[in-house]
Amino acid sequence: MNRRALARSMVFASVSLAPAGTHVIADEQPLAGYSAESSRAERQWEEKLKAIPDPDKIRGYMERLAAHPHHVGSPYDKDNAEWLLAKFKEFGLDAHIESFDVLFPTPKERLVELVEGGPRFTAKLQEPMVPDDLTSKQQSEQLPSYNAYSIDGDVTAPLVYVNFGVPADYEQLERLGVSVKGAIVIARYYGSWRGIKPKVAAEHGAVGCLIFSDPHEDGFYQGDVFPAGPYRPRDGVQRGSVADMPLYAGDPLTPGVGATKDAKRLELKDAETITKIPVLPISYADAEPLLASLKGQMAPQAWRGALGISYHVGLPGPGKVHLKVKSNWTPLQPLYDVIAKIPGSVYPDEWVIRGNHHDGWVNGAEDPLSGQSAMLEEARAMGELLKAGWKPKRTLIYCAWDGEEPGLLGSTEWVELHAEELAKHAVAYINSDGNGRGYLGLAGSHTLEKFMNDIARDIADPETKLSAWKREQLRAIEEAPADKKQDIRQRADLHLGALGSGSDFTPFLQHVGVASLNIGFGGEDGGGIYHSIYDDFYWYTKFADTTFVYGRALAQTGGSAMMRLGDADLLPFEFAEFAETMQTYVRELKDLAKKMQDEIRERNREIDEGVFTATADPKKTYVPPKKEEVPPYQNFAPLENAADAVTRSAAEYRKALEHANANGGTALAAASLVEVNRLLIESERKFITQEGLPHRKWYRHQLYAPGFYTGYAAKTMPYVRESIEQKEWKQADEGVVVVAHCLEDEAKLIADAAAKLVAAH
Amino acid sequence: MNRRALARSMVFASVSLAPAGTHVIADEQPLAGYSAESSRAERQWEEKLKAIPDPDKIRGYMERLAAHPHHVGSPYDKDNAEWLLAKFKEFGLDAHIESFDVLFPTPKERLVELVEGGPRFTAKLQEPMVPDDLTSKQQSEQLPSYNAYSIDGDVTAPLVYVNFGVPADYEQLERLGVSVKGAIVIARYYGSWRGIKPKVAAEHGAVGCLIFSDPHEDGFYQGDVFPAGPYRPRDGVQRGSVADMPLYAGDPLTPGVGATKDAKRLELKDAETITKIPVLPISYADAEPLLASLKGQMAPQAWRGALGISYHVGLPGPGKVHLKVKSNWTPLQPLYDVIAKIPGSVYPDEWVIRGNHHDGWVNGAEDPLSGQSAMLEEARAMGELLKAGWKPKRTLIYCAWDGEEPGLLGSTEWVELHAEELAKHAVAYINSDGNGRGYLGLAGSHTLEKFMNDIARDIADPETKLSAWKREQLRAIEEAPADKKQDIRQRADLHLGALGSGSDFTPFLQHVGVASLNIGFGGEDGGGIYHSIYDDFYWYTKFADTTFVYGRALAQTGGSAMMRLGDADLLPFEFAEFAETMQTYVRELKDLAKKMQDEIRERNREIDEGVFTATADPKKTYVPPKKEEVPPYQNFAPLENAADAVTRSAAEYRKALEHANANGGTALAAASLVEVNRLLIESERKFITQEGLPHRKWYRHQLYAPGFYTGYAAKTMPYVRESIEQKEWKQADEGVVVVAHCLEDEAKLIADAAAKLVAAH
Repeated sequence: MNRRALARSMVFASVSLAPAGTHVIADEQPLAGYSAESSRAERQWEEKLKAIPDPDKIRGYMERLAAHPHHVGSPYDKDNAEWLLAKFKEFGLDAHIESFDVLFPTPKERLVELVEGGPRFTAKLQEPMVPDDLTSKQQSEQLPSYNAYSIDGDVTAPLVYVNFGVPADYEQLERLGVSVKGAIVIARYYGSWRGIKPKVAAEHGAVGCLIFSDPHEDGFYQGDVFPAGPYRPRDGVQRGSVADMPLYAGDPLTPGVGATKDAKRLELKDAETITKIPVLPISYADAEPLLASLKGQMAPQAWRGALGISYHVGLPGPGKVHLKVKSNWTPLQPLYDVIAKIPGSVYPDEWVIRGNHHDGWVNGAEDPLSGQSAMLEEARAMGELLKAGWKPKRTLIYCAWDGEEPGLLGSTEWVELHAEELAKHAVAYINSDGNGRGYLGLAGSHTLEKFMNDIARDIADPETKLSAWKREQLRAIEEAPADKKQDIRQRADLHLGALGSGSDFTPFLQHVGVASLNIGFGGEDGGGIYHSIYDDFYWYTKFADTTFVYGRALAQTGGSAMMRLGDADLLPFEFAEFAETMQTYVRELKDLAKKMQDEIRERNREIDEGVFTATADPKKTYVPPKKEEVPPYQNFAPLENAADAVTRSAAEYRKALEHANANGGTALAAASLVEVNRLLIESERKFITQEGLPHRKWYRHQLYAPGFYTGYAAKTMPYVRESIEQKEWKQADEGVVVVAHCLEDEAKLIADAAAKLVAAH
Repeated sequence: MNRRALARSMVFASVSLAPAGTHVIADEQPLAGYSAESSRAERQWEEKLKAIPDPDKIRGYMERLAAHPHHVGSPYDKDNAEWLLAKFKEFGLDAHIESFDVLFPTPKERLVELVEGGPRFTAKLQEPMVPDDLTSKQQSEQLPSYNAYSIDGDVTAPLVYVNFGVPADYEQLERLGVSVKGAIVIARYYGSWRGIKPKVAAEHGAVGCLIFSDPHEDGFYQGDVFPAGPYRPRDGVQRGSVADMPLYAGDPLTPGVGATKDAKRLELKDAETITKIPVLPISYADAEPLLASLKGQMAPQAWRGALGISYHVGLPGPGKVHLKVKSNWTPLQPLYDVIAKIPGSVYPDEWVIRGNHHDGWVNGAEDPLSGQSAMLEEARAMGELLKAGWKPKRTLIYCAWDGEEPGLLGSTEWVELHAEELAKHAVAYINSDGNGRGYLGLAGSHTLEKFMNDIARDIADPETKLSAWKREQLRAIEEAPADKKQDIRQRADLHLGALGSGSDFTPFLQHVGVASLNIGFGGEDGGGIYHSIYDDFYWYTKFADTTFVYGRALAQTGGSAMMRLGDADLLPFEFAEFAETMQTYVRELKDLAKKMQDEIRERNREIDEGVFTATADPKKTYVPPKKEEVPPYQNFAPLENAADAVTRSAAEYRKALEHANANGGTALAAASLVEVNRLLIESERKFITQEGLPHRKWYRHQLYAPGFYTGYAAKTMPYVRESIEQKEWKQADEGVVVVAHCLEDEAKLIADAAAKLVAAH
């Protein structure tokens, strides 16, 4: 996975008239959480920090780390971990490797063939080497293209095209009179996280699942293909995990506990995240003859991709496909997480954590090494500052995770093993997962919204020389509909997107409740090498952040954020914008419930009027929808009251903060903030419930979760939202109470912090 | 041209609870314009009429008429005209042929070759024959694929892809730093009428124009291609006229006058509707190597079609294309309009006119013979009723037009020749232009909106057995956004779409001011044989209205409308819905002016903020837009007052009508309605001004015109609307006065008619 796959969802705003670029220190307000004096010192250290990262070094790290395939269990994965360890140590950090043993299946047999309904065809399932791209030739070291955690299977069945393979697509198939029961489905990538596709297919009775990269989303439709251009070539394949990660992340055999040598493990057959049907990813070259063989009705307009064929749904039709998938399931494979610490000088028990994974599906230059290399350079800069006398108040921890690709394994096992310590000590977790040219995307916990905006204002975009913040704000203005533009201009800060899943922040945020951020540049580095053998140093240095100036910018961003959190007198959590976001989420839930009522009522009416039968072509099969019960009204009052309580407390906290910040923060400088900081650290923990979300108790955060049927994309207040979406009205009622309870607790905590902040002066 | 190419724009509504299908005569309100007694008689005749049309006969007509290519000037075109003449006579109608001599260029030389920038390639420019499709083999009789009225030319130049080739596309090219000056453009069909593409290209300095059928709009993306399915095959080409018809319709050499033998003719060089640059249409097979050779930036996302290539804009790039087009311009070619009359028994000087063209680009089964054959069967039914003793009060005229394809030649020359008589006598013109399976589309003069709705309520959809009206209403409900559905349900009638151009109603409506309607079934007969050699009897009987039951329905629709207008005591014009539409148009103009102000103001602001430079990829060429003056406020008061006057008069007329209709229309039966009918006939004429529209005085209707830059799609109140769109503010002010004046005149006429209707009792 990587930043490309993570939904970008920031919306932005400000009336700031400050000039872009570097700040003029003298005229400024102190940094949030700093007195005038400590702010001056901090700014000086940050300026020093930002001057250190060197694009050439980042390039060098990437070249070394990407020199061979380095997936979990490969020799070079271990070699990279040891090299990273040595580097951290060389920089002066206190580093070690933590190792886990996990289930990681690799391909043993793979076969896809068209056996009836067209010219006999056997899929190639092989990405060809490219002459100038030297690492593309390391075939013996490469993992063949496959979807990890597919169950073994050998099936021959009719093929049905299911578009992206999300629940709405099956509703459309039902209208066309097509069932996938007993069929193999072929779904295109995108539209959901890949693991959703076989899960939903199995729920509908399919016996196998092929996932292909359609050139419309990922190939020549987007631009010239590799090696002439950066986009996915005909035979390029997207590898990836299809474990049911929205159920739980990490090693399928050890949910909730660290996969140490002696951990209690499930039997394979009891591992719920393994798919129910066999799955294999294929290239568009391999998909084309299969799709071309399909009969039946034309696929709905929005389902048609960019292959030069008429897209049909497939049934009724004569075609049959044979799919065979077998994996090596044993032995368990080792993970090597590299953990490096800078001990805190004042509050060593307050941890600020930074992470990026180091394992790749193949050579993984962009994903993950573009981020890993920048983070390594960030760590080097930290080391330099330590030598120059800088002493962070808090403990900073740098983590190079292994096993992210198969399912956030390295981070999850580490978090599960250290869950109690983290719950006590973790201030925040800052994640990245690759990097590219373009805009700084920010998403994360809304208590850190103001903080992250402040950081972004201080980072220069290397190509336009605007601040990263300003550039993103101008883009948001451009992209907003006319009636939203003024809001963006007038809001002091840019909205953070909510985090779903797709990278290593998930266990921190959603399992333990550590306030988290995800950072990375991108958007001007289009390409189609994601999880293929072409994601390598050759591709990256030809088409992406070729001069590594955005790598430097990422090191500056991550470094500034770590440092500012590590040095703050008062932790820069803030609740007014958080409260605003909570109010928005509650309003969205109410709107969603209303919309579902309206839609079902309207559809029922149209069914009564005969709209669906009247407007169906009498010469084509069409099954009209059935009437449904109109959803009951829900009681959202507990949530509304709780959100208002948060809003009130947030105002109190802001007032206390203003008081502390008055006169250059003299009150702040004089205060004893230990207790306040303690509360701030715990603020995100209030959203963790022991029972977790319905049917997936590993996910315990009541504000943010990956969608059960989207996979990466965030669902906010998921207990309530997904219950409504899934028409579980009673469960939605329960969710309202649970989430409201969390918000009430949070309101109390904030009010408490405000009171303590005033008292501390 | 045909109904496919005409924009469908009806929106629909009703609370009618009447059962679908045939009416129960006894319980009903009298027909509009009829007393209870005359209504009963009329209904009986209409029921008899609707029972007559025979699908097998329609099939037979089509088979005969489509047996050979029958374009203007071909032997079979004349043969068809003579056969139609004989048929009308056989049916008992008083028929004759009227002939004109027109400019009609045919291909002499055609060449398209890629001479630089890719493998040498010469376009085939030939549609291959299909074994089972016998008429596809009549190669010696077929017009080669070409665009009629392209100027001769021989150019070699770089190629630029311009999407649909409309003005907005050139704005996007400007942003990409691409100029077409000195280049040949390649545009895809659709997005505008084809003649707009070379016109706009020439305005931007291009020296040649290729138009291709992209499979996205017209090929495998839509469905299986011919002969396996109905859609356009690789080598299929859309012929068609590229004369600048939004300037004037008809023979380019005789604008405004009938092209009789001795008409005064322009010299060819002075014929303004001939293109300024050479143009040729090509298939997607021929387009693919040309498009694949293009370099430069990727085409914007919305520009990318369905060919299996990366769509680039072309410049900067090394490619060059050679385009050569030469036509035979002499001699003039004959047109044969077949005109058949049924004299009116009471008001012979009141003419109700019906028309469909008979010429095709090649064999023209769908376009136009599916409509022509149904209209012929309608005429046969009329003949049968005459024999049974029916005597229409008014004169009915059936017209089988020649030369519609090159530019509405047959209808326009006839209308120009008979303009004075038509201005005196014509009650209404009802056009069709082909027919297919599906929904009854209705568009036309809004004074006939209620009338046409009444007709549609009485026509049974042959496949669903709903009334054509009900089916269309249910579709409108389905397709409307949620907040519009109730309006559609509650409105008594369905809105008529406004007429732009694209068929023979144009001279009647827009040059002379005859209230017009356009009718035809379609929407469930997708295909891609428009203007190709595959639009023939084989294709039509395999893929379209294969049983000709919709042909029968069209004969029933046209026949009922002709009969009901021909027999009415009081002509069924109505003004309340018309007034409502006028209010809508005025509101739209105000909204448009406001929107342009807002958009320009916002864009200027974003230019000041640096949005466009900040969000452009620094590694790609990008030219930001320039600031523009914010449009001034316009005075719409004259239009608003005039529309209100129409609304008031319409209310008076409705009241008078209710009075006349009271007690089973006894007042109506007793009244002398000659003078009222005279005013009603003139009601559409009030919108004709002698000066016509700016820069195109042939178009004289101040409510409806084809868009100067859209070609088919209607522009309502075009003097004002297009002036605003083209930022001609002074001209917009003038337009407001002109249109307001027409509306004031109309308001007086309606009030006068209301007064006379009351007095007549």
